[in-house]
Amino acid sequence: MIDRAACEIRDQNDPLRAFREDFVLPPGTIYLDGNSLGAQPAAAAARAHEVVTNEWGTGLIRSWNTAGWFELPVELGEKISGLVGGGAGATVVTDSTSINLFKAASAALDIQAEDAPGRTVILTQRENFPTDIYILQGLARQLGGDYEVRLVDDAEVAAGLPTALTDDVALVVLSHVNYRTGRLFDMASTTEAIHARGATVIWDLCHSAGALEVDLAGSGADMAIGCTYKFLNGGPGSPAFIWVSGALQNRFAQPLSGWWGHANPFDMVADYAPADGIRRFLTGTQAILSMSVAEVGLDIFARADMAAVRSKSLELSDLFMTLVEQQLPHHPIEIVTPREREHRGSQVSITHPEGFAVMSALIERGIIGDYREPSVLRFGLTPLYVGFTDVWDTVEALRDILDNRRWDLPRHQVRGSVT
Amino acid sequence: MIDRAACEIRDQNDPLRAFREDFVLPPGTIYLDGNSLGAQPAAAAARAHEVVTNEWGTGLIRSWNTAGWFELPVELGEKISGLVGGGAGATVVTDSTSINLFKAASAALDIQAEDAPGRTVILTQRENFPTDIYILQGLARQLGGDYEVRLVDDAEVAAGLPTALTDDVALVVLSHVNYRTGRLFDMASTTEAIHARGATVIWDLCHSAGALEVDLAGSGADMAIGCTYKFLNGGPGSPAFIWVSGALQNRFAQPLSGWWGHANPFDMVADYAPADGIRRFLTGTQAILSMSVAEVGLDIFARADMAAVRSKSLELSDLFMTLVEQQLPHHPIEIVTPREREHRGSQVSITHPEGFAVMSALIERGIIGDYREPSVLRFGLTPLYVGFTDVWDTVEALRDILDNRRWDLPRHQVRGSVT
Repeated sequence: MIDRAACEIRDQNDPLRAFREDFVLPPGTIYLDGNSLGAQPAAAAARAHEVVTNEWGTGLIRSWNTAGWFELPVELGEKISGLVGGGAGATVVTDSTSINLFKAASAALDIQAEDAPGRTVILTQRENFPTDIYILQGLARQLGGDYEVRLVDDAEVAAGLPTALTDDVALVVLSHVNYRTGRLFDMASTTEAIHARGATVIWDLCHSAGALEVDLAGSGADMAIGCTYKFLNGGPGSPAFIWVSGALQNRFAQPLSGWWGHANPFDMVADYAPADGIRRFLTGTQAILSMSVAEVGLDIFARADMAAVRSKSLELSDLFMTLVEQQLPHHPIEIVTPREREHRGSQVSITHPEGFAVMSALIERGIIGDYREPSVLRFGLTPLYVGFTDVWDTVEALRDILDNRRWDLPRHQVRGSVT
Repeated sequence: MIDRAACEIRDQNDPLRAFREDFVLPPGTIYLDGNSLGAQPAAAAARAHEVVTNEWGTGLIRSWNTAGWFELPVELGEKISGLVGGGAGATVVTDSTSINLFKAASAALDIQAEDAPGRTVILTQRENFPTDIYILQGLARQLGGDYEVRLVDDAEVAAGLPTALTDDVALVVLSHVNYRTGRLFDMASTTEAIHARGATVIWDLCHSAGALEVDLAGSGADMAIGCTYKFLNGGPGSPAFIWVSGALQNRFAQPLSGWWGHANPFDMVADYAPADGIRRFLTGTQAILSMSVAEVGLDIFARADMAAVRSKSLELSDLFMTLVEQQLPHHPIEIVTPREREHRGSQVSITHPEGFAVMSALIERGIIGDYREPSVLRFGLTPLYVGFTDVWDTVEALRDILDNRRWDLPRHQVRGSVT
């Protein structure tokens, strides 16, 4: 039997323990929603102040050059690329995940049409985060009915798409980790299966970048997108990223061809000509304040060993699941996150018939996870600021709430949060 | 002859004088680039601090609801709508100008294809800010060669497009004010001419929102886009806006169909269904920090009378042009901004063969305008924080630089600024 003292000892021996000081959390809060919105880095407020008062206020228009604002998409992209195995000069930070998926999917279909004309199917997970599906539907609709978006079950994806990968599949768009269940898909073998059937793959790393070791280039992936505000702690709605493999970068043609992607943006010529390489993924002027503060979150990872992050993440989720079974055996709870470590992201999701009310009661106590239909309580485990004792205290609070039906209390509204 | 004392008296009698206190500018600076990046509102730093430390740091994921983050696009849109005559419930703040133009143009072509099939031409100004042209070219390319982007001269637009408006024109995209010359086009009569030939019009208000009185609904316009970081002082790269006339809102179908535009985003269903009304203009998660700070800039306008802003703007630009003629008669300067008030935005542009070097010398002295190829020195006149004496001092500095060839000095790099 595990007890709280054992968890305290694990915290004391945690090699990542010092990173807790890099974040500010409200007193008395256990924050298990960093898979939706990462916590505030301690350096974020000072960075925001610097950008507003010095870069904007004093530097004014000059800061586009002197403060390096123009370079931020590439500079931040480089930092993310290092975390996801993207290699140098392959990633930019810009726009939102949805918009970057539109760019990537459009470019990928163009390349496919050139290399293997006649393919008409776009595959994605039925359980993918809906915006990915919606964007693909919007793109297919705009392309005039030439393409069909086909949805596949997670089990089919996990098996390497043995049935769905027919010869008419042009593009496969896959979330690396399922946002609801935390299920992780194998990037290398799945990419290999997709390529073996001649299709292109785009990986959505929203729930894996900063959460676990990702090896985009080593897996042979074609393109990837993801956000910076979950495990990367970039701040609410901070800009997203897009990665394209070296072989495809100069073939990347996107319809959102704005001036930031032009070969010579300040020549102000009337015809679009894409920049060489990764700048062509850009469109218009970027939200500099949000982007500058996002860099603070990324810089914390420069000191973190992703293997250690992944190792602690798995220990935390193992512990969470073990304690749920140990402490809550008599409740109608199902653990929906895979028990096998290789199939698990950095969260634990459980179901309970009163899931929404139970999560509200937890939040009332300062233990913040979130709720997703139907019946799913999600607990994000972010190793840089969550400890083993936090997991113990969470499951104990759950036990008290469930044993004593303490969910019939005034509730917070917790549904309206971001994936 | 106008002298400095006369300008000082005008400043003393300026009814907008008190607004200068709403902005922080570096000591000794005359800032005439607010048409590219507006100055820092005095309340911006505190707002940024509040968002980072309280809303993000303490509120965490809950702030999507408790701090109203989800509502910001609509809330800020409402404030902008009031400034541009858009009416209630017709505008959202989101993404970038380029991306919003893509959405609007795509939706407009769909509507046209339904109402008047077979039209294949998209018209825009040859001298439009290039990103507008590039986006239209990208859209046309994605639509598979069905559409052609045709460029027209400003003189043709000013004349009401008598020649260019052929029966195959589906869509006209016009910048309300030319970014380089400051030329203003008449929205009502031009819209009427476009509608008379059965085409749809999208107005780009980047250089008119917050600069002069705009009456979108009264002009019968169909759609509009614009940025918040110029005359609206929203901060570097702050999110853009999109307005759609009431009649077209529920016909607005966009390919960037992300989850923020879904009728029921938290139901997480697999099929896209657009929200009723303006939320369907949205795509993905927004850069909340940049958007929150942009609201500070908009709130200043709640206290400003746009008629007074326009009146002072015209007085400032009249003065600027008069002084250029009075003080610099022997230099090879051409004023490219129209002298007629009704054809002028809120800037004065002049050419000089050594324009780039001359602007560099001005910036060296703390007088910040910018330079645009070829040979154009731009001076943005933002009535909330620029005074008549500032105009005098600027022209006097120009006189000293030109009379004494003081431009052969070490230079700032001034080209890399944003439209």
